[in-house]
Amino acid sequence: MPAQRVETSIATVCLSGTLPEKIDAAAAAGFDAVEIFEPDLLGCPSSPAEIARRVAGAGLRTSLYQPFRDPDHTDPARLPVIRERLRRKAALTRELGTDLVLVCSSVHPHAVREDDRLAEQLHALGAVAAEQGVRLAYEALAWGTHVKDYRHSLRVARRAAHPNVGVCLDSFHVLSRGDDPGGLGWARAEELLFLQLADAPRLSMDVLPWSRHHRLFPGQGGFDLVGFVDAVLAAGYTGPLSLEVFNDVFRQSDPRATALDAMRSLRHLAEGVDRSTGEAGTAVALPTPPRPLHWAFAEIGGAPGAAADGARRTLEQLGFYQEGQHQSGPITLWRSGSVRVVVNARGTGGARLTSLGLRVPEPGAAAARARGLLAPVVTRSVGPGEVDIPSVTAPDGTWLQFCDLENSWLQDFFPLCAADAEVAAERPAALVFGGVDHIALPQGFGGFDRAALFLSAVLDLQPTAVVDIAGPDGLVRSRALLPPVADEGGGVRLVLNVAPSNALLRGRTGGGGHLALVSSDAVAAAAEFRSRGGRVLDVPGNYYDDLEARGVLDPGTLARLRENSVLYDVDEHGELLHFFTANLGPDLFLEVVQRIGGYRGFGAGNAAVRLLAQTAAAEVAGTAPGAGGPA
Amino acid sequence: MPAQRVETSIATVCLSGTLPEKIDAAAAAGFDAVEIFEPDLLGCPSSPAEIARRVAGAGLRTSLYQPFRDPDHTDPARLPVIRERLRRKAALTRELGTDLVLVCSSVHPHAVREDDRLAEQLHALGAVAAEQGVRLAYEALAWGTHVKDYRHSLRVARRAAHPNVGVCLDSFHVLSRGDDPGGLGWARAEELLFLQLADAPRLSMDVLPWSRHHRLFPGQGGFDLVGFVDAVLAAGYTGPLSLEVFNDVFRQSDPRATALDAMRSLRHLAEGVDRSTGEAGTAVALPTPPRPLHWAFAEIGGAPGAAADGARRTLEQLGFYQEGQHQSGPITLWRSGSVRVVVNARGTGGARLTSLGLRVPEPGAAAARARGLLAPVVTRSVGPGEVDIPSVTAPDGTWLQFCDLENSWLQDFFPLCAADAEVAAERPAALVFGGVDHIALPQGFGGFDRAALFLSAVLDLQPTAVVDIAGPDGLVRSRALLPPVADEGGGVRLVLNVAPSNALLRGRTGGGGHLALVSSDAVAAAAEFRSRGGRVLDVPGNYYDDLEARGVLDPGTLARLRENSVLYDVDEHGELLHFFTANLGPDLFLEVVQRIGGYRGFGAGNAAVRLLAQTAAAEVAGTAPGAGGPA
Repeated sequence: MPAQRVETSIATVCLSGTLPEKIDAAAAAGFDAVEIFEPDLLGCPSSPAEIARRVAGAGLRTSLYQPFRDPDHTDPARLPVIRERLRRKAALTRELGTDLVLVCSSVHPHAVREDDRLAEQLHALGAVAAEQGVRLAYEALAWGTHVKDYRHSLRVARRAAHPNVGVCLDSFHVLSRGDDPGGLGWARAEELLFLQLADAPRLSMDVLPWSRHHRLFPGQGGFDLVGFVDAVLAAGYTGPLSLEVFNDVFRQSDPRATALDAMRSLRHLAEGVDRSTGEAGTAVALPTPPRPLHWAFAEIGGAPGAAADGARRTLEQLGFYQEGQHQSGPITLWRSGSVRVVVNARGTGGARLTSLGLRVPEPGAAAARARGLLAPVVTRSVGPGEVDIPSVTAPDGTWLQFCDLENSWLQDFFPLCAADAEVAAERPAALVFGGVDHIALPQGFGGFDRAALFLSAVLDLQPTAVVDIAGPDGLVRSRALLPPVADEGGGVRLVLNVAPSNALLRGRTGGGGHLALVSSDAVAAAAEFRSRGGRVLDVPGNYYDDLEARGVLDPGTLARLRENSVLYDVDEHGELLHFFTANLGPDLFLEVVQRIGGYRGFGAGNAAVRLLAQTAAAEVAGTAPGAGGPA
Repeated sequence: MPAQRVETSIATVCLSGTLPEKIDAAAAAGFDAVEIFEPDLLGCPSSPAEIARRVAGAGLRTSLYQPFRDPDHTDPARLPVIRERLRRKAALTRELGTDLVLVCSSVHPHAVREDDRLAEQLHALGAVAAEQGVRLAYEALAWGTHVKDYRHSLRVARRAAHPNVGVCLDSFHVLSRGDDPGGLGWARAEELLFLQLADAPRLSMDVLPWSRHHRLFPGQGGFDLVGFVDAVLAAGYTGPLSLEVFNDVFRQSDPRATALDAMRSLRHLAEGVDRSTGEAGTAVALPTPPRPLHWAFAEIGGAPGAAADGARRTLEQLGFYQEGQHQSGPITLWRSGSVRVVVNARGTGGARLTSLGLRVPEPGAAAARARGLLAPVVTRSVGPGEVDIPSVTAPDGTWLQFCDLENSWLQDFFPLCAADAEVAAERPAALVFGGVDHIALPQGFGGFDRAALFLSAVLDLQPTAVVDIAGPDGLVRSRALLPPVADEGGGVRLVLNVAPSNALLRGRTGGGGHLALVSSDAVAAAAEFRSRGGRVLDVPGNYYDDLEARGVLDPGTLARLRENSVLYDVDEHGELLHFFTANLGPDLFLEVVQRIGGYRGFGAGNAAVRLLAQTAAAEVAGTAPGAGGPA
């Protein structure tokens, strides 16, 4: 990426709401420019000039008007009509404050097949554009009648041989076809008028509905956007990086939040491009990702009274001891080896993970990176003598608190106990945990892709494939974020879950928030936990009968799993033994995980059974919001 | 269809909730049997024997246990493990109260390729099955490693040559491949052990996710289920018709409502099969669909006080006059030519279409048909001297009231006015409406496919393709139900809309409920309506500038459309002019429609502009629940 600042732009179609709401959201997120999408304009009561003033007043510029469709036709009698249409749209484009019109390759059955004839018609449109003082950026739609790929659009645009005709590149149209930007070596910089960026999950479906419903912001999908942008910049492109994302969920979400996601994705993308080219050129220089990354603590909040008591009791039954008491409130600190859990008996909404402490070499830099990626800073009162932990808020409201290597944050707690080593000697061997295996955060509607982008960008984690889990209320979507290979000294694992829309409509969460502890003997841990009065989530006998029928375990092991409600999974790398505690809140439980021989998953094969068992347990308890049948 | 009663069955995977909830829902909907889906069993704390008792206690039987996966393997060492797995699953199947196990064609990379060897392995499994007293129904999964189509599964099953081995047919796996049931001519009746039915929309995507997420009940999708079932029955199949539908929305919906949909779809399907074969054989003999079908009235309810006043005022401004006053409440009857609208100033929830009156030759038969299709009967108090109109409730709560050809229902109203002919003479020519063009009903989450099935079955309407409309809150899904060709003497058109999930989450409706009137001059109607003080939904000038740029209208016409906020659309058959009134309720407005030259659509091309204009209007008014920006 060249050293000058790269302009950022977003198409209004990415955002929900009315055109003024979209413009304001783009401005609030710090974009430089907006592409105006024609349907947004047609439904807007403001005139183009008023819209241009609104854009300018918001500190933006209009980067492009789009789309001008079906520019060519086999019937010569149609051409004057098309030219007149362009003349008017070009005038409108000028009123909107830009000189760039996106022209899509035709999807019309009567589109021109021969390149020469098509180029001739584009040349004539170029003349109209020149009269009106605009330029035409010709884009190959992946589903165009004849022109489907950018190499073809480049050829035709060059053959049009008009200074007001160039091309628009769209990463989706290129990468969805399995194409690569290699053909850009052949392009001249002045031909590259515009660049639209979209990521997407790799789906096997028709490219049109894939494009119209499932695009994502860069970093959220499966395309190599860094490589793509690298290649376009290397070809001499100097225009804006403009996001054009059609997504069914984003269309329904708060446009201001979506615009922040969009800008965050561009900043993260630019960082990737700089890293790839070895040059610094992004608009915002971000501190490098925090490494190594370790868990400092997990905080359970939102649970006053009995709920906090229940959390503390469960921790004690798992062998945790109380290490400290906060100076300024009903906040207790629980420890087991390297694992620390804070129980904050304040707040409302039911016990959940309200804050995650991350131990990093440079907490200030980590927080600055998060702020550079548009994370809101946590403003909280720091009492006299208390440590100010640099903290930001994730999109789901969870605090990320960056703690130093010395764990200075512990100074806020009055120590209540001897050193861990002394206590550990009294702890049953089965309840010695090796650390935090992973932490799962439930997400609300629309929060899933947002959280994946936020956490992967801020903490430099790698999102894995999305998994659907069939629960009694519908499909739960789940996705793990793993440490990059480069973070071998540390590494935290997060899992994001989102409950089905209708479950959310009915006020259920069902996202399965939890803290998973590493055990070297999950069966013994379950037995010891139970002997200390702990409540393990009951697993049905039918589950063990199935394991038995599959013949994957010896009878003795199977009997011990069955007795202790420990579940089993296997992947090509190894095996997993794990159990769950009874729920501590409507959407919070603890898990104990024993990975054997390099198992890499998170027990997704058992998640459907867990969801049913949790529903059954909630029905028995008659308490949790998850209780009762679907409605 | 043979004359004996055909057994009905449903796979538990069709329904949400826990296994007992699914069983109870299937029983409540009147099914004869359930297929038990393995994951439902594994997550259930009840033993197989207890489940069998629950099934029997609910008046059902277990028709099948499924699925037994990957029955074959290229490695002979794996075969004893597979046979032991089958032995245990067979025993379990017996405990569940059935003798039928569904065996899927293998999706394993080490599946056996050669038919002989595969048949040999199936024969060995047949021997295990015989020992345990069960039969194996071998099913070709469309994405099987080698066995992908039912012809292949039939060949292999026959070559297995074991009396306990036959096939299961699944309409989805056959029809999704573009295959047809023609190969069944070759099958023997005793080989056809089971029949699973699912419909689906015609999508161009990988068959696996299509199958796992988008199946529908028969009649809701695009497959020819009647032809398929016809062919299977003609081949001598005598087992149950069993629904197996994986659908993301059904998984989230009330299992009792979904089970009713399922049973309704089977009854409608059976009717179609009988109609096709000319034999009567369905479990429930349904009266023939009501024909010809005409609108008797539309009732606006849920709007006491000012809202009812607003509705009445708008009707007057559209040239309606008050024809009657209900005997027993604040209910007024409004008329314009053949169009009658009832305004019921009782109820809550905001003005909406609460009841649709349909004029039919035999109201009792029409209601009996609806009841046979599991429609709840409306129970309401009929005052002395009042007419009892046979009525049922659609799944969205709208009443369907079947009125006789003599319009006896008018007797409930005191006449307030002279005959229509006299009043009509005073009505402005522009406000003479030719009837009701269509009525649009907004649906809640999960109600879209349900309503399409209900209305198409009860009224014998033809569902058309689903259209997505990009509104400011997300994509609105829309689908029209059209009269069958056979109903040329009458015919009502309905449109179903469902707002985006998140709009529903935020308490918005946005489904665009409306009553559309037929005009011979929409521009004059709009002008006259406005001159009488009526409020037309303002259409932005940008919309008309676009029409002008497209060059589709002469300047004079365009100017008149612009002046009166009348919209324009065109399809291959003709043109449409139409306008909308300001909203009468959060999700109710009136439309005036002029079809020119055989235009067949519903103005979907203008729906995005309408949604934005309605949002803008609600923002100005600051009242409707649709007001305000997305959040």
